[in-house]
Amino acid sequence: MTKSNRVWRLRKRPVGIITDDVLSLEKESIPDPKDGECLFQLNYLSLDPTNRIWMSDEEQYMPPVALDDPMRGVVCGTVLKSKVSAFKEGDIVSGIGTWSDYQIGTPESVGLLGETADVSVIDAFATFALVGPSAYFCLLDIGRPKAGETVVVSTAAGAVGSIVGQIAKIKGCRVVGLTGSDEKCRWIKEDLGFDEAINYKTENIHDALVRSCPNGIDIYFDNVGGSILDECLKLMNLHGRIPTCGLISQYNSPEPTPGPFNYSLILMHRLKIEGFIILDYLERFPEANKDLVKWMSEGKIKVRLDVSEGIESSLKSVKKLYTGENTGKLMVRVKDI
Amino acid sequence: MTKSNRVWRLRKRPVGIITDDVLSLEKESIPDPKDGECLFQLNYLSLDPTNRIWMSDEEQYMPPVALDDPMRGVVCGTVLKSKVSAFKEGDIVSGIGTWSDYQIGTPESVGLLGETADVSVIDAFATFALVGPSAYFCLLDIGRPKAGETVVVSTAAGAVGSIVGQIAKIKGCRVVGLTGSDEKCRWIKEDLGFDEAINYKTENIHDALVRSCPNGIDIYFDNVGGSILDECLKLMNLHGRIPTCGLISQYNSPEPTPGPFNYSLILMHRLKIEGFIILDYLERFPEANKDLVKWMSEGKIKVRLDVSEGIESSLKSVKKLYTGENTGKLMVRVKDI
Repeated sequence: MTKSNRVWRLRKRPVGIITDDVLSLEKESIPDPKDGECLFQLNYLSLDPTNRIWMSDEEQYMPPVALDDPMRGVVCGTVLKSKVSAFKEGDIVSGIGTWSDYQIGTPESVGLLGETADVSVIDAFATFALVGPSAYFCLLDIGRPKAGETVVVSTAAGAVGSIVGQIAKIKGCRVVGLTGSDEKCRWIKEDLGFDEAINYKTENIHDALVRSCPNGIDIYFDNVGGSILDECLKLMNLHGRIPTCGLISQYNSPEPTPGPFNYSLILMHRLKIEGFIILDYLERFPEANKDLVKWMSEGKIKVRLDVSEGIESSLKSVKKLYTGENTGKLMVRVKDI
Repeated sequence: MTKSNRVWRLRKRPVGIITDDVLSLEKESIPDPKDGECLFQLNYLSLDPTNRIWMSDEEQYMPPVALDDPMRGVVCGTVLKSKVSAFKEGDIVSGIGTWSDYQIGTPESVGLLGETADVSVIDAFATFALVGPSAYFCLLDIGRPKAGETVVVSTAAGAVGSIVGQIAKIKGCRVVGLTGSDEKCRWIKEDLGFDEAINYKTENIHDALVRSCPNGIDIYFDNVGGSILDECLKLMNLHGRIPTCGLISQYNSPEPTPGPFNYSLILMHRLKIEGFIILDYLERFPEANKDLVKWMSEGKIKVRLDVSEGIESSLKSVKKLYTGENTGKLMVRVKDI
């Protein structure tokens, strides 16, 4: 292996939006696996809203990435060399890794991607490694949708939101999605089967929610926090649930942002708000993915990838998450399988 | 019955603190019960934080009191005349009524106070009619305390808070109470058995919580919202619970108040916040009161009443709830039994 290894390293913590000097791409040597480790080559890098959290040193659910360390990411790669019985050369693994061509994996950090049936590796990784189980458990375990209820989803054309809406439809709910362009509205309504789509950038959110949710909101699946959360709170039915999977409207804010102004409705309407981090559900992934594979093969769940080419595109691409420029799951194709 | 009936009527909606012109006390005639109703004489009037909500027209869990209507309250009285089989003359009833000497009850609005064993009627009414079951269900059903966990309670010397802390002690928890005077701190620690007491008016809340909760907070029983909620959020352990029984810091605010600035920790620490209104638990009162009677007779739960004398004292007295002047359950003794 005489090739060099390109490694994105965290150089400073972002303040506000992610700027170009937050990460730098370095040419480095390829690491050697020790006993208990494998070396794998990165095929696909998943870009996720949580990347911005890891870059910061705000209080979070894992240690933040240390300054000058390789940037952390959800990765899919091919094993080149193994000194651990869990993996052999040629295995396709996915899990938590770094934004680098060649990297070390352990049975604690990555696992076999597993059978993907007739789903391509990139689709399977995009769906089953993180966002599919997130949508599945956060909606079903925390939201507990019942047929006939109204479910509102923010970032509805995003990776998690688009799957949440489709699962809610499978469960017999009325589903309303908020997203940031007319094209995305068209996609979630016409292609994914949402009942209503709201362009939160051009429509009056309150009026649009009132119109789209004639029976109020039973579940607001929150990916964003902020003013959309506030508007949804106003329409929540008694005993409504707000599974909280993300608060992306706050991640780029350099100032502390207050919680919702309609916080008192949590009391008045006996609402439940519960935070969700997928790390708590790793052991239950097979349960989610069994249903997800079935629904995908039946055409009941469609996924759309937003893929940029080459590891060098990662920084430019990750910024799209915070401006709403992506549609579907944002990915980097480093080396196709 | 030639006596007149004194009736507190709502004359305007409070803006900010409750002022003297919000209610007026009128002399009126004594109503006659129709078929299906009884007439009862008020013995004790319970004053509760929720009174301020009912006076306002903010969105709430029951219709607000209409302007010029008698003020709504939780009441205990003696049946004088009955035209309904559920009640007979001399029965002691409690439930939702009005701030007036003589009033009409129905089986929907009031019920028999029931056996109070060796507990006096005023103690039984003060504890079993509202605050005891509130403390019991909100802590146990939503908070789900486990032995060894740390429970923080706000308004800890108040009617609900003081019982919450004592139930949490019975369940084997470390219990820390926040209250507003050194005397109340002494009471909850020395007489009620709280592990720690914090005077939120004189101490730095953050420092005091850090010192009192060396293992973090598993349950924050919220009666107040606002800055105390924010400080508790910072110390919540993973999967902590915030049963929300009241938000009294906000009730008097004339401006919309934002939710907690540390809202994002709900996500990061996978917290659960859930609103609680006792009306949802009316059918389960016997379950709570069976335990409460037992614990009271064993001396494991002590209640303290803060009683003002005469129906004319009601308005002056209710204001104490929002300035923290009361200790224990605030009551008005109208006519002793």
